[in-house]
Amino acid sequence: MSITRINEFQAADGKAADLFTFLKSLKTYISSSPGCESCEVLQSNDNDSLFVVIEVWDSADSHKASLDNYPQEDMAAAMPLIGAPPKGGFYHS
Amino acid sequence: MSITRINEFQAADGKAADLFTFLKSLKTYISSSPGCESCEVLQSNDNDSLFVVIEVWDSADSHKASLDNYPQEDMAAAMPLIGAPPKGGFYHS
Repeated sequence: MSITRINEFQAADGKAADLFTFLKSLKTYISSSPGCESCEVLQSNDNDSLFVVIEVWDSADSHKASLDNYPQEDMAAAMPLIGAPPKGGFYHS
Repeated sequence: MSITRINEFQAADGKAADLFTFLKSLKTYISSSPGCESCEVLQSNDNDSLFVVIEVWDSADSHKASLDNYPQEDMAAAMPLIGAPPKGGFYHS
């Protein structure tokens, strides 16, 4: 059974556009990861600095493998764009 | 351009299973509404009383029309299942 990962990101002040660009690049990486069934990057209509990433995976292990294989230096480079610790969780239908 | 509506529901104490059943019935109604492109009802893996409903619409007007046409007595009957005011917002990709 597929699982859904929902992550919420808050951009740092003045970094919303840059974070949106980064998250869209992340979408390309995530979507091409083994076991990823879909990935959507969304910006709030009410709050430009609020983003939600919705990923559907065939398993939690596939999600973890994708996370583990992501270049750490790219993730580190994106940290200044993020204004608060991302919130996330797994969901099922 | 499609829009995504994300709503978060917290079940009242002991009502998680009933709320999940209600939200799944809502999914059938929402999915058949004009302009609805998809609707997912998800339960948190970490917190059984937390639910997220993700709807994709062709426009905010279609979402509003669906909401306006939903039988108010059915919505009222579900209120005891909900433990806190639902949180929701529109998002775009």
